[in-house]
Amino acid sequence: MTAPGRLPDEPATRERARAIPEAAVARLAVYLRVLSGLAEQDVTTISSEELSAAAGVNSAKLRKDLSYIGSYGTRGVGYEVEVLVDQIERILGLTRKHSVCVVGIGNLGHALANYAGFPGRGFPVSALFDVDEDLIGVPVGGILVSHVDDIPRVCAEREISIGVIATPPPAAQGVCDRLVSAGVQCILNFAPVVIQVPDHVEVRKVDLAVEMQILSFHVARRADEAANADESGMVVPG
Amino acid sequence: MTAPGRLPDEPATRERARAIPEAAVARLAVYLRVLSGLAEQDVTTISSEELSAAAGVNSAKLRKDLSYIGSYGTRGVGYEVEVLVDQIERILGLTRKHSVCVVGIGNLGHALANYAGFPGRGFPVSALFDVDEDLIGVPVGGILVSHVDDIPRVCAEREISIGVIATPPPAAQGVCDRLVSAGVQCILNFAPVVIQVPDHVEVRKVDLAVEMQILSFHVARRADEAANADESGMVVPG
Repeated sequence: MTAPGRLPDEPATRERARAIPEAAVARLAVYLRVLSGLAEQDVTTISSEELSAAAGVNSAKLRKDLSYIGSYGTRGVGYEVEVLVDQIERILGLTRKHSVCVVGIGNLGHALANYAGFPGRGFPVSALFDVDEDLIGVPVGGILVSHVDDIPRVCAEREISIGVIATPPPAAQGVCDRLVSAGVQCILNFAPVVIQVPDHVEVRKVDLAVEMQILSFHVARRADEAANADESGMVVPG
Repeated sequence: MTAPGRLPDEPATRERARAIPEAAVARLAVYLRVLSGLAEQDVTTISSEELSAAAGVNSAKLRKDLSYIGSYGTRGVGYEVEVLVDQIERILGLTRKHSVCVVGIGNLGHALANYAGFPGRGFPVSALFDVDEDLIGVPVGGILVSHVDDIPRVCAEREISIGVIATPPPAAQGVCDRLVSAGVQCILNFAPVVIQVPDHVEVRKVDLAVEMQILSFHVARRADEAANADESGMVVPG
């Protein structure tokens, strides 16, 4: 079942997209993953409490996030799973096709080329690039590796819209420039270096060491809180 | 040079850590990467404009972030690189050692075991685990793979504080439970599934398909803005 009387890219829906905070966009993607799993199991409705538990988000925040996309659920019933999947997909722009290329086929590039989460959610990996002559023409995850010099031709032919950079840091900016010249407007950068792009190009960084440092921060803060609780004379049972 | 009269875990510094927003913590880690690179090149001072450009953050946000850690710089001079490195490291809890284990040595696990960004920034990978008998005892990135049944013993012996989950989704919760039982308080989860942990354990998720969907959202929004600009009668030059 889909929402009656709604066209895929209805202006009112896309208009709402402008006002959604970045952090809420990331959570919408998580709700979509949970909801898609439910739809596969033929679940038709879900309460906000169930959805918030499955997504690991508190239910007040969940309801606020869904209100951004104009979805308020029905008291005593909750949300219709397929309607919500449809609404989130339109807000996230997933009604369009997004072919992906990966540049830099080292350990990480191999992992990304084989990453099962991409094709399953509408992001087929359609091209791979490297500079190593021994890799050119070798199939990785079913796709032959091309030379980075062929980025313009291959990206045009295969209508690549997302470029994933998994090169060593010194090569990242040069690769990014080639992707941008080839018309790629979205870059996901795994190289631990800041890359410069024109205004019309969107970059997201995944820096694994930064993730580690955020974890480290929380552990240190918790240790402090525990130490402060001790100092303040709280009685520790046992 | 280090800041005079400051002890590594001075209460006032750690006290500040409580009030820092999550997003600012992530940016502090990025500033640290840039500043560490400058320190290696013997750069001693940097202006907020230079640092903001190198980190890809606007300078007002940078100054606000640094004010959280009590760092305001000096007018006309900027920030002392080593002092700032020292302050950020203490706030992020990087004065403590954090040994890492990786569970699930498939493509992604191999990439993580060999990820050069971890040891370079104080997160040595010290243990690897899998269930595949063919992998047990095989060296990956210089470390022998252990069986997941040995998580409690190996994690205790090697003082693992961060567990990285790179298993297929159905295995993630079971692996997480074993890590938590072994005393690991920080989990970095790459499996596209929500895992449940006790309150004292911190989890960060890296979901690559979510990153793709966030990119998709921005591309769709930009396309809409361009379409709206056309409709509103703006003159397109050329």
